[in-house]
Amino acid sequence: MTTPNLAAIRAAAQRIAPHAHRTPVLTSSYFNTRLGAHVFFKCENFQKVGAFKFRGALNAVLSLSDEEASRGVVTHSSGNHAQALALAAQIRGVAATIVMPENAPQVKLAAVADYGATIVLCQPTLAARESTTAEVIRETGATLIHPYNDVRIIAGQGTAALELLEDVPDLDLVIAPVGGGGLLSGTAIAVRSLSRHARVLGSEPAGADDACRSLAAGHIMPVDTPGTIADGLRTSLGELTFPILRELVDGILLVDDASIARAMKLVWERMKIVIEPSAAVPVAALLEHEDRVSGKRVGVILSGGNVDLDRLPWMK
Amino acid sequence: MTTPNLAAIRAAAQRIAPHAHRTPVLTSSYFNTRLGAHVFFKCENFQKVGAFKFRGALNAVLSLSDEEASRGVVTHSSGNHAQALALAAQIRGVAATIVMPENAPQVKLAAVADYGATIVLCQPTLAARESTTAEVIRETGATLIHPYNDVRIIAGQGTAALELLEDVPDLDLVIAPVGGGGLLSGTAIAVRSLSRHARVLGSEPAGADDACRSLAAGHIMPVDTPGTIADGLRTSLGELTFPILRELVDGILLVDDASIARAMKLVWERMKIVIEPSAAVPVAALLEHEDRVSGKRVGVILSGGNVDLDRLPWMK
Repeated sequence: MTTPNLAAIRAAAQRIAPHAHRTPVLTSSYFNTRLGAHVFFKCENFQKVGAFKFRGALNAVLSLSDEEASRGVVTHSSGNHAQALALAAQIRGVAATIVMPENAPQVKLAAVADYGATIVLCQPTLAARESTTAEVIRETGATLIHPYNDVRIIAGQGTAALELLEDVPDLDLVIAPVGGGGLLSGTAIAVRSLSRHARVLGSEPAGADDACRSLAAGHIMPVDTPGTIADGLRTSLGELTFPILRELVDGILLVDDASIARAMKLVWERMKIVIEPSAAVPVAALLEHEDRVSGKRVGVILSGGNVDLDRLPWMK
Repeated sequence: MTTPNLAAIRAAAQRIAPHAHRTPVLTSSYFNTRLGAHVFFKCENFQKVGAFKFRGALNAVLSLSDEEASRGVVTHSSGNHAQALALAAQIRGVAATIVMPENAPQVKLAAVADYGATIVLCQPTLAARESTTAEVIRETGATLIHPYNDVRIIAGQGTAALELLEDVPDLDLVIAPVGGGGLLSGTAIAVRSLSRHARVLGSEPAGADDACRSLAAGHIMPVDTPGTIADGLRTSLGELTFPILRELVDGILLVDDASIARAMKLVWERMKIVIEPSAAVPVAALLEHEDRVSGKRVGVILSGGNVDLDRLPWMK
């Protein structure tokens, strides 16, 4: 496994272009005025399956050799990566097996099944998920598509920032959320390769602050029991993403859940778009650190829009 | 008062262009597949003040003579027209007085005040609103900007459909919600003037079905006590809008509140955009009348996105 570079991101962009949306970049006079900055929101909530995850999953599936593809793909996930891989596999006509915890919400199971993937249920522990996945691989020879610790995934996720910089070349700063680090790694590679001076910041929930602590410590420090409403960011950095972030990212801003919920509601109210808690994390970070953005041209990756409309964080 | 025509809509478009957003037209593979149609959503929820109302209000304010402008504008409204007129007046640097019922939500009062308008509170009855407005006019000489029964307003609202048809010229059908009829009148004039064959439909809450009944009866039949979650559509047709609809609109589709709430939630979930109940009315109508749209190219005016996020219609 080598570190992906700009060429890999450009190749991914070309590979996924026929199937992925080129998502819009929106601006908001409210946020510009409030932050004293020019903010450009890259709207991955409008991406297929409602999240940037489709970019990486599709790049991975389209990168398989025909021989690999014939044996299918597998992953374990109950989040956006599960749906993303299921749809990506459907597009190439490849079998997909998604290992999901038996307590996963019915709506998430249905969404994955709708894309024609095979669902294998397991106990809701990491050990069970990994052993079940290993069993699927033994039986089928399927290729594991890890949600973030995979060069094809990182290159795919980097295409969002690539498009953002094509649309808005002269950014001073780009901020993205960090969970496992796939999106932030791809973003950092794209931004730092394409811009001489632009900085890259990560933003992370205080209740799942492994990236912040890992970068401070100089080695990976996973969070054992993450606690945050930003359900897409509960995972910890991987061995591939950690060194990329250490080299290319200028810092990680932490925000608490109350701040995330406020930022999420503010985006809904002012921009009239639906974003999920994880996507609100970089917005919360900007609002809490106005000094870092004032006077700058700032790109924000709004990572996704999949949220349970019956259970919103500001509802009692 | 004469009926506005395409030339008036084109003039309005030119007048408002420096200040109003040209809103995007979005598509959704989910709705296309479900309806067996090509549906183009004109997103007025992204318009300034979050609703198409800004178009009409701005056109009206910019159409005033300098002498009229010097005496200010006035209206009575607790809805989107209040904010729209306040912002339009602020842009021209004209005094605006908004007569609002004393029980109007604090958030709506604050929004109007934020745009620099003077708020005059009155009792929450139509009689009190009208007499208070008349008093303001007597005292200040301000020009009344009625929310829909005004040629300048109708011409302004028609600019949304004008833009839609510029972006998507070959539509078979355009559907818009109907309350007082300003938006639907402007839409009908634009569509029927620009397209040889496109039909125009209105969509209305069953609990405020005055347009449907008025067109059937051949004269205006106001609804005395409207009951619907679509708060923007509780008003009844005016003497100016009724004859326009009678001449140019091919029918009104009625939908009940449960259907409106379902359609609203579906748009949020599938398109990741925030629309208000009134904007969900035409979407609900399409979903309930698939036979009317199957195989067609359909334009939908999503009228606005101002909604109380603490009180959503699908929450208990």
